Amino acid sequence: MSVLETINSPADVKRLTRSELSVLAEEIRRRIVEVVSRNGGHLASSLGAVELTIALHYVFETPQDKIIWDVGHQAYAHKLLTGRREVFETLRKYQGISGFTKRSESPHDAFTTGHSSTSISAGLGIACAKRLKKEASKVISVIGDGSMTAGIAYEGLNQAGALHKDENMIVILNDNDMSISHNVGALSSFLSRTFSAKYLQGFRKEFGEFLKSLPKIGDDIYQLAKRSEESFKTFVTPGMLFEAFNFDYFGPINGHRLNHLIDILTNIKELNEPVLLHVTTKKGKGYEPAEKNPVYFHGIGCFEVKTGNCIQKGVSVPSYTEVFGETMVALAQADPRIVAVTAAMPEGTGLSRFAEAFPERFFDVGIAEQHGVTFAAGMATEGYRPVVAIYSTFLQRAYDQILHDVCLEALPVVFAVDRGGIVGEDGATHHGLFDLSYLRSLPNMVLMAPKDENELRRMLVTALAHNGPAALRYPRGTATGAALEDAITPIPIGAAEVLEKGDDLLILAIGRSVQDALEARRLLALEGIDAGVVNCRFVKPLDIELISTLVRKTPRVVSAEENVLQGGFGSAVLESLNDVGIHQFRMERVGVGDMFIEHGPQTLLREKYGIDAGGIVQAGRRVCGLSASESSG
Amino acid sequence: MSVLETINSPADVKRLTRSELSVLAEEIRRRIVEVVSRNGGHLASSLGAVELTIALHYVFETPQDKIIWDVGHQAYAHKLLTGRREVFETLRKYQGISGFTKRSESPHDAFTTGHSSTSISAGLGIACAKRLKKEASKVISVIGDGSMTAGIAYEGLNQAGALHKDENMIVILNDNDMSISHNVGALSSFLSRTFSAKYLQGFRKEFGEFLKSLPKIGDDIYQLAKRSEESFKTFVTPGMLFEAFNFDYFGPINGHRLNHLIDILTNIKELNEPVLLHVTTKKGKGYEPAEKNPVYFHGIGCFEVKTGNCIQKGVSVPSYTEVFGETMVALAQADPRIVAVTAAMPEGTGLSRFAEAFPERFFDVGIAEQHGVTFAAGMATEGYRPVVAIYSTFLQRAYDQILHDVCLEALPVVFAVDRGGIVGEDGATHHGLFDLSYLRSLPNMVLMAPKDENELRRMLVTALAHNGPAALRYPRGTATGAALEDAITPIPIGAAEVLEKGDDLLILAIGRSVQDALEARRLLALEGIDAGVVNCRFVKPLDIELISTLVRKTPRVVSAEENVLQGGFGSAVLESLNDVGIHQFRMERVGVGDMFIEHGPQTLLREKYGIDAGGIVQAGRRVCGLSASESSG
Repeated sequence: MSVLETINSPADVKRLTRSELSVLAEEIRRRIVEVVSRNGGHLASSLGAVELTIALHYVFETPQDKIIWDVGHQAYAHKLLTGRREVFETLRKYQGISGFTKRSESPHDAFTTGHSSTSISAGLGIACAKRLKKEASKVISVIGDGSMTAGIAYEGLNQAGALHKDENMIVILNDNDMSISHNVGALSSFLSRTFSAKYLQGFRKEFGEFLKSLPKIGDDIYQLAKRSEESFKTFVTPGMLFEAFNFDYFGPINGHRLNHLIDILTNIKELNEPVLLHVTTKKGKGYEPAEKNPVYFHGIGCFEVKTGNCIQKGVSVPSYTEVFGETMVALAQADPRIVAVTAAMPEGTGLSRFAEAFPERFFDVGIAEQHGVTFAAGMATEGYRPVVAIYSTFLQRAYDQILHDVCLEALPVVFAVDRGGIVGEDGATHHGLFDLSYLRSLPNMVLMAPKDENELRRMLVTALAHNGPAALRYPRGTATGAALEDAITPIPIGAAEVLEKGDDLLILAIGRSVQDALEARRLLALEGIDAGVVNCRFVKPLDIELISTLVRKTPRVVSAEENVLQGGFGSAVLESLNDVGIHQFRMERVGVGDMFIEHGPQTLLREKYGIDAGGIVQAGRRVCGLSASESSG
Repeated sequence: MSVLETINSPADVKRLTRSELSVLAEEIRRRIVEVVSRNGGHLASSLGAVELTIALHYVFETPQDKIIWDVGHQAYAHKLLTGRREVFETLRKYQGISGFTKRSESPHDAFTTGHSSTSISAGLGIACAKRLKKEASKVISVIGDGSMTAGIAYEGLNQAGALHKDENMIVILNDNDMSISHNVGALSSFLSRTFSAKYLQGFRKEFGEFLKSLPKIGDDIYQLAKRSEESFKTFVTPGMLFEAFNFDYFGPINGHRLNHLIDILTNIKELNEPVLLHVTTKKGKGYEPAEKNPVYFHGIGCFEVKTGNCIQKGVSVPSYTEVFGETMVALAQADPRIVAVTAAMPEGTGLSRFAEAFPERFFDVGIAEQHGVTFAAGMATEGYRPVVAIYSTFLQRAYDQILHDVCLEALPVVFAVDRGGIVGEDGATHHGLFDLSYLRSLPNMVLMAPKDENELRRMLVTALAHNGPAALRYPRGTATGAALEDAITPIPIGAAEVLEKGDDLLILAIGRSVQDALEARRLLALEGIDAGVVNCRFVKPLDIELISTLVRKTPRVVSAEENVLQGGFGSAVLESLNDVGIHQFRMERVGVGDMFIEHGPQTLLREKYGIDAGGIVQAGRRVCGLSASESSG
């Protein structure tokens, strides 16, 4: 029996000897590599946090003490130690355990996470609650250095530092010099201790020379010199920054030395002030391929354990992301006004090649979506055409900046909204199901979604040619395999296209739902229903002229979108039809209902929630007045 | 002729002698006090920035050089010096100049502002654009210490510090130890130089004693000691923080000594690195009542110049804000789970009395809406019932946190969304016209708006009794004068109420539009149209049962809301009617169209955009098939 097999709760960790703990660490690593190689997941971060996780559970008492794992994708070891060992193989599988921490999954998951940098704020809230309740238990927020670049982390630190009374707040900075890709920003170089304030260095040099020049006056001088040297070292380490926020700073310490970690955590547990412990770890630690390429192994699909090689399923069709990235390079060659902005996602958004080709015109702002959008607005005021590429779910962070800094002055900023719709295994925190609603309500915004990768290219050109804000949203994963036209021609703003005519039913679709609508048309034809399909292209402005003409002719309508129904595309159709006074129609809206969607394969979720071709078929039947039995019978 | 009267552009400032500049400062102050006493506005901040403004325009060359005034409410002197002297008396008046900086108003307004903390991000974008264009002009972001608590400011600093090449970026920290109310947070105490990292102080003391203990070995020691002392002073000032972000730090300097300011700005202009100049100013400087009470004079209505006394228009009806604040105190006395969270707005949100009564249960997080919401979510996980009181327009900053940290786990956080709808003179950046849309699309959210202050109390109780997220949004300004019931009873979630029955027309109203609907009913009755009025109370869940029954009976409907129409309340009605299969009706939605609304008196704007009683009457006529001439004829 392995050590890991004896662990059913954190209490079992506490019973182990120090040498058994080391064995446990190795076993956990092996288990994580095994499962992630089959299921995909966030490998590198979780491998880096193994010893830290063991030490935390050895020293603290969850669930009374609260550990908040920022983002939560580094918490695989935590899951293995907190009663989820036996279900760990279901990681990220449909109806299996989540790839992030989740309150409903375990009492040991203190906060539901997924988006970065919330752990200090949530932890502080919990600590303040515990103070009011006069509970002495501890709150530990574990946050990566990458997550520290987001403003909310700083806002949390700022309040935490001011509330001296919250003696039970511990922040552990898990510093691996990486967020998802390599870190950016001043904080990063600060954390890597290349800090070089001139006056400090100058003074230090002068002081050293002065000491050398002194006559020997005994041991005192030596002692002082030594201590001064240490003080200076402290000055030029991150301690300085966190002390500024009134945190007691400890570190940096090696996050893979279990004994040392346990000792220092045991000491820190006794302190009654806000504490920041700076731990350095190696992303991918213990699995050579991941150590060598932590960016690639940050979030990974299936791979071969021995080599680390990706297990490809022989996909030759490019992803939307790839087509976007390549088109950006091509367009930027011709138009020097195009610049690209990403928030810590050069690889994820497909902009790596752009970054290589145009390093001066590429801006990775770190995990800082708010700043990224306003930064782009600033560039737009100077005549540039910034393309801000951010996943749908993360762009939510910049809602106010899109509204206030871009739309209000109608600045020509282009939003390339990747991962719109169901994203799959990352689940509820990551689905991009709200963008059509939150972007549609903004004045001056042009909002598009392409039916395929060729149209994505055309929409990017359309957006860049438009003298105002424009967003194009497209899904995660492989595109349709559509041929890419050499000449990329813009689409007239607001122009939908009729893909198929039909007398019985009108399907109004947007984005990837257009492909499903075409498939639904085929299936409905088998049942004798002749459905027309319109690729609406623009959620805003909606092509109400075309739509109203068609609805008057065929007053049986299905709208199809991969977005929540509240305020989404179908909602826009209803509003517009009402505004032009068309009431004589039946319509059903296909989209995601008023709920959050769990994790699972994209196709499975689309089927389950009735937003695929099958869902459109069923809606079509109902609109045409046929029940399922009638039409199939 | 006064000096001010000779200033038609910044070029005229440069022609003045230093002593004329001082006279100019006095004249500007007088002019600002004069106009704000009549028009209302942000007095204290603008008075504090007079010398800084003069110095900036004396040294730099706008519009080639770009000055970005963070928030923009301190830019009155800037407006007076940049060609808007003659229209300054129209400040904040309808069709007059804005109370904030605005690109469309002047080429000297480099960026449109209103929400806090965007200036570093926008400035950095402009600086990067200028670098690409190889333009040598300077970018100056002027940001208050209060604005520095918002995450986006930190995100901007972080990127700025990493881009060494942006030699033309100057950040001026305008430090008056206030944001809107008194500052909170660690940064604030840091800026006020009470910083006391223990090791630093210890070392300093030791070093001093060591120096004292040395034999005299000449001037060198003295010089070194002196320099060390200075270095230590720098260590324990904010320079430390900003140097950490790779900024060259200067200051703190007195922001009211014009000569000194001009000299140091002239020097800084020559530097080729990111520079941070720390200027200390006094809010309200030069006008005694404002110096004494800068919080009160932050944003002020009309007042008597001589005394500073508010010119009240004899209003005895309380504001919604006041009723909310008082109810919070009453409810918190009975329920120890209630805690209150505000983002730098204890006075503005009416929570001052709560803060006095329950200091331990009151949390002012500073200008940090994102953190405030996630902090509240943390408290909610521990069984507390946090009420987060934030203006509608500022809550936009926390959209992702509401979705991801509150709604996803259905945590019982209450959002008291003040300033929903048209706010008046603060204009486009401040109207709360999007909340019904952006909150409605979130799963698990209960979304309400009261018809009067008594219902506000009931909705607060309803929200607190609900075991999930709930928001109530209410308008700026005086309430309706409704009697406050002693016992505050909750409203069944999702229950609308029929206020008036009517056979010809059905008016579905939400929030303050209910009062307009009642008035519209009265006016329509004069024309022979019998209109029913429903106070819908809940945007979500909508009382579709009641509504569909009524619409079936009276299929002529007007919806009325003070929100954009895209995805708003009327949109929800259309969605729900469609979902239940009701198509036989005519409906017109009254609300704000797809545009931003300028500043002006609330009543004027409501009339202009047709969202008052008159607007509802016209919509009602159209729905009933009468043209304006028919009904009035």
